[in-house]
Amino acid sequence: MRRDEFAMEDPQEIEDFLRGMSFGFLGTADEEGIPRVTPLNFAYVNGAFYFHGSRMGEKMDHLRRTPAVCFTVADEYALIPSYFSDPEMACPATAYFKSVTAIGKAVIVDDLGEKALAMEALMQKLQPEGGYRAIDANDRAYISRLKGVAVIRLTPQRMSAKFKFGQNLKPDRLQAVVEGLECRGKNRDEETAGLICKYHPGPR
Amino acid sequence: MRRDEFAMEDPQEIEDFLRGMSFGFLGTADEEGIPRVTPLNFAYVNGAFYFHGSRMGEKMDHLRRTPAVCFTVADEYALIPSYFSDPEMACPATAYFKSVTAIGKAVIVDDLGEKALAMEALMQKLQPEGGYRAIDANDRAYISRLKGVAVIRLTPQRMSAKFKFGQNLKPDRLQAVVEGLECRGKNRDEETAGLICKYHPGPR
Repeated sequence: MRRDEFAMEDPQEIEDFLRGMSFGFLGTADEEGIPRVTPLNFAYVNGAFYFHGSRMGEKMDHLRRTPAVCFTVADEYALIPSYFSDPEMACPATAYFKSVTAIGKAVIVDDLGEKALAMEALMQKLQPEGGYRAIDANDRAYISRLKGVAVIRLTPQRMSAKFKFGQNLKPDRLQAVVEGLECRGKNRDEETAGLICKYHPGPR
Repeated sequence: MRRDEFAMEDPQEIEDFLRGMSFGFLGTADEEGIPRVTPLNFAYVNGAFYFHGSRMGEKMDHLRRTPAVCFTVADEYALIPSYFSDPEMACPATAYFKSVTAIGKAVIVDDLGEKALAMEALMQKLQPEGGYRAIDANDRAYISRLKGVAVIRLTPQRMSAKFKFGQNLKPDRLQAVVEGLECRGKNRDEETAGLICKYHPGPR
C-alpha cells in the first residue's frame, strides 16, 4: 500500500470484515510464474484462511509446485462521483472500499480432523442457519467425503488492510462527500457516510 | 476450469457481465515470483481491460518487471444451502456465481490519447449519469492530470468464463434448488432461479 492514511491496523476491524465476506481471490503462480487469480469461498479460523476444492485441477498443481500465494478480499461500499466535490473535473471520482491482502505459504491439509474443522467452519459461516449434520472426522458418513475433498490452509506471513473512506480529503471536500452520499441515498450510502466519519482521523 | 459444464462461451454474455461489474482483481508477480492480488476498478473497451492508478507503487514495479498478469472478475449470486437438496449431509452446499478470468501481458500506456480514452471509458462506466467535463487529451485542463496518472492496458491472450448455476445437477436436485430459492426470496434469489433455468442445458 502506497498511502498510509488508508491502512487499517485494528485486528478486530479486519476480522469483522473477513467474517462478513463470503469469498475472496487466491493468487497462485503457474509453472512459468504467471499469476492466476481464482475466486474462492473461505473461512478465517484461528488466524488462518481455509479454502476447499477439488484435489485435481490447475490451482492444486500450482500450489504443489509454488506454495507462495496471495489472498485478497475486497468489498466496494460506494462509487463516489466527481461532482460530489468538484462541479467540473472528473478527477475526484473514486470508490470507497475495504480490502484485506494476505501473503504466505499455502499448505494442502491431509489431516482429517483439520479438514473437518475447516469444512465445518465454512458451513457455519456460509450456512449459519444450520440444517445439516455437523461435519466430524469421526462420523462414518463424512470420512470418505473428507478424504475426497482438498482443503488448503493459508497462514499469512504478512497481512495488510486498506479501508479507503476519504481519509485523504480535506474537511470541506469530506463534508461534501458525506452530504452527497446522504442526499443520494443508494443501498449502502448511509453506511458509507457513517464509515467515513468513523475512520476519518480528524474532526469533520 | 476443470468442469466443462460451467464454461460460458457466449461473448455477449461475458461482455454484459463485465459491463455490470465495477471492479476485479489483478494478479501480478513480485521480484520473487510471489503473486500479489489487487482489487481495481476497470473498463473493458474494444476487447481490452483498462485500469488506472498511481505511477508509483508496488503494482507498477511488478508490471514493469513481469508484464504477464491475470485479471479476474467474479460475482456471487447466491449461497445454496445443503438442505435445498439434501436433508442431512452438508456436501451439496455451494455458491452460484459468474466469473471471468483473463490472462495476458499488461502494457503501461504512454499515449495521452489512449489514456484519455481509457479514463473516459472508466468515467462513463462508473459515473454514467455524467456531471463532469469529458476527458479529452486535447483539453488543457486535463493534460497534466493525464500525464500524472498511470493507465494500464491488458489485452487478453486467453479469456475464460465460468457461470456456475447448477448445470451439474440432475433434474430433481435442480428443481429442489430452484424451489428453495423461490421460497427463500432473498435479494437475488429470483434472479438466480432465472439464471439456473437459462443456463441449464436440458429441460427442467
